[in-house]
Amino acid sequence: MKTWFNVPENSDFSIYNLPFGIFSTAGHHRRAGVAIGDHIIDLEAVAQAGAFHSLAIDNSVFSDDTLNRYIALGKATTITIRCLLQEWLCTEGSVLQKNKQVFVAQADATMHMPVAVGDYTDFYASIDHATNVGKMFRGPENALMPNWKHLPVGYHGRASSIVLSGTNLKRPKGQVKPADATAPVFQASARVDFELEMAFVIGKENGLGNSVSTEEANEYIFGFVMFNDWSARDIQAWEYVPLGPFLAKNFGSNISPWIVTTEALAPFRVAGPKQEPAVLPYLQIEGDQNFDVNLNVYIKPENGEENLVSESNFKYMYWSANQMVAHHTVNGCNLRVGDMMASGTISGPQKHQFGSMLELTWGGKEPLTLANGEQRKFIDDNDTVIMRGFAEKDGKRVGFGEVSCKILPAD
Amino acid sequence: MKTWFNVPENSDFSIYNLPFGIFSTAGHHRRAGVAIGDHIIDLEAVAQAGAFHSLAIDNSVFSDDTLNRYIALGKATTITIRCLLQEWLCTEGSVLQKNKQVFVAQADATMHMPVAVGDYTDFYASIDHATNVGKMFRGPENALMPNWKHLPVGYHGRASSIVLSGTNLKRPKGQVKPADATAPVFQASARVDFELEMAFVIGKENGLGNSVSTEEANEYIFGFVMFNDWSARDIQAWEYVPLGPFLAKNFGSNISPWIVTTEALAPFRVAGPKQEPAVLPYLQIEGDQNFDVNLNVYIKPENGEENLVSESNFKYMYWSANQMVAHHTVNGCNLRVGDMMASGTISGPQKHQFGSMLELTWGGKEPLTLANGEQRKFIDDNDTVIMRGFAEKDGKRVGFGEVSCKILPAD
Repeated sequence: MKTWFNVPENSDFSIYNLPFGIFSTAGHHRRAGVAIGDHIIDLEAVAQAGAFHSLAIDNSVFSDDTLNRYIALGKATTITIRCLLQEWLCTEGSVLQKNKQVFVAQADATMHMPVAVGDYTDFYASIDHATNVGKMFRGPENALMPNWKHLPVGYHGRASSIVLSGTNLKRPKGQVKPADATAPVFQASARVDFELEMAFVIGKENGLGNSVSTEEANEYIFGFVMFNDWSARDIQAWEYVPLGPFLAKNFGSNISPWIVTTEALAPFRVAGPKQEPAVLPYLQIEGDQNFDVNLNVYIKPENGEENLVSESNFKYMYWSANQMVAHHTVNGCNLRVGDMMASGTISGPQKHQFGSMLELTWGGKEPLTLANGEQRKFIDDNDTVIMRGFAEKDGKRVGFGEVSCKILPAD
Repeated sequence: MKTWFNVPENSDFSIYNLPFGIFSTAGHHRRAGVAIGDHIIDLEAVAQAGAFHSLAIDNSVFSDDTLNRYIALGKATTITIRCLLQEWLCTEGSVLQKNKQVFVAQADATMHMPVAVGDYTDFYASIDHATNVGKMFRGPENALMPNWKHLPVGYHGRASSIVLSGTNLKRPKGQVKPADATAPVFQASARVDFELEMAFVIGKENGLGNSVSTEEANEYIFGFVMFNDWSARDIQAWEYVPLGPFLAKNFGSNISPWIVTTEALAPFRVAGPKQEPAVLPYLQIEGDQNFDVNLNVYIKPENGEENLVSESNFKYMYWSANQMVAHHTVNGCNLRVGDMMASGTISGPQKHQFGSMLELTWGGKEPLTLANGEQRKFIDDNDTVIMRGFAEKDGKRVGFGEVSCKILPAD
């Protein structure tokens, strides 16, 4: 595929990607856009040029401040629109080439949350991560809980505090209990950690009481973003028994601004791990369910350079997105458009592939040394954590850009 | 206080209550209303009669299909409106008496979800409930977890599946692991249970990164509803380690339709338990933080009569709503208008005051016998569970009506 539009080499936003997002420009409201190279295709402007006339859709969806109504049009429509854009970008004299005003430089735009998140669910679906954490807390014999290989363990998280890349977060305060203390103390968390995750956006409603099969799940998964599930390990250790993590997680999570569609990721599908013991029929699915997406994490201290601290890959997941959807709805739980489901920390089998400081420093016992000579057990004040992800194959690159956040000092 | 309006004796919706809800009537859209006796005051109609003119508010909030924008006007406004209604209901010749069209018979109305719930948090804040569950699962020595008296244990639940009283739910299916089995099986839950809870609705936003003190929390708690937090005990037992309950809870929760304001509940404030050990300063608060609200649970088998199975009271809470808000936000987590926080199962110290079948039948070991001679360990297909709550003192009654739901057979 060759486009007449100028896309820089190695851009995450190649002609093969065309992810959806919400942006604004000076003096003009939030609206829907598609990334191409260093630019954004302004979908409101494209619609105003009459380009979508034949689709008989309500053009006002492109002027909303979230993509929810657009995504709710359904896969048939959103796939068609992405294909049309691709075609127009490759056709001389197309409606896009004739209407250059539809292109906005990313440098002139501000990105915003792409969807209003109804409910957010976090899974725990990387076997290397679950094994690492289990080894640290329960020893190597009992690393994986008995249920872990039978179902994708998940729990509900906080939707309100999912914010965009670039929204910095204050170090959370809370109760922690020092090992040698008889009572908890109140303090700023001393163990703030990132979690390298991917999340997907739900694009269809099932309605309360209706299960979605692993095959049907394809219609429900609109696309993916990168997800930093910030965690305060010391708060978590004290609070999480018996009902799970709460304040250790809900002070904030960051996502990357562009939703990369499952269609754009299709060429990068790979087989997942063989699931043994065999899973129950409602979780079974054929075909390549994983995605080969390189995931890198960098720590950038204040005034310092970026330090690559993790090189993981989305392909290491034990449980797939389709299985998560099937499991989530098997009891009749209703999904809504804009809901977000995150993978849980994505660690690979090797040490440099671990997706959290907890694992990389093995609970703080083996600090990382940065290029400036400083050491890190966890994330320090004014450190920026940057995650970047991209798939690449046969000269095609489909990337996520980045998700970035600085941890500000506690009040 | 004496009203010229005909309020039946012992009505939950006395002149002292005036709770807010969303209703519709044949051929007319959803809109805001206030319950009085067997009627509803149609706030859209009251606004159209010009009654709120002096308040300089946007009257369109009363025509929304949720109360979110109304509640977001803030306590000063919502308290004023409730006071005005009270005054008009007690004044001969008032705008309400002159505009009888503003009264709608509850029998002619359909109630709807009063708010769009952004995030839902469930706490675990009754000491009798936590102790009972702890005894059953861990023995009497370790009944309460070490953190339990230091913080109100809470976790995020599912907002999408919170539905109104009267929305019946299908028995959920899922993985359960029989004690003697080596692997889980897929089946309809055999241990569907109610949980008697109260929930409160958040009425103010704090913004990400900002804590709310226990005193400031008063501004954030708009009012209360009854809450049935349905639970599938067998699904829960298998799935909940280590990240908490998930599919065991998110197949549905029911709420009562009318939000009873904290102002209406003020006369029924009572002291909570003495908290020992003393809680950390951010959780401390003076004054009567509990509410004396009688809470009764009934099981009505198909074609059978109602059986009173639990007589609990909201006053038995160990942790108060204000403490929940302070704890929830101490790390900077942002609350939004319409968020819901539930108390967790409210059990009293005596056996007939337990708020779940798990406790009432002690894990199914001591079945209840119903009036028709049938026994119940948990909830059977086509059983309707009805919860009713009311406060009463000095001849004043402020009630919640009921929250009711029938468990339908699994598909």
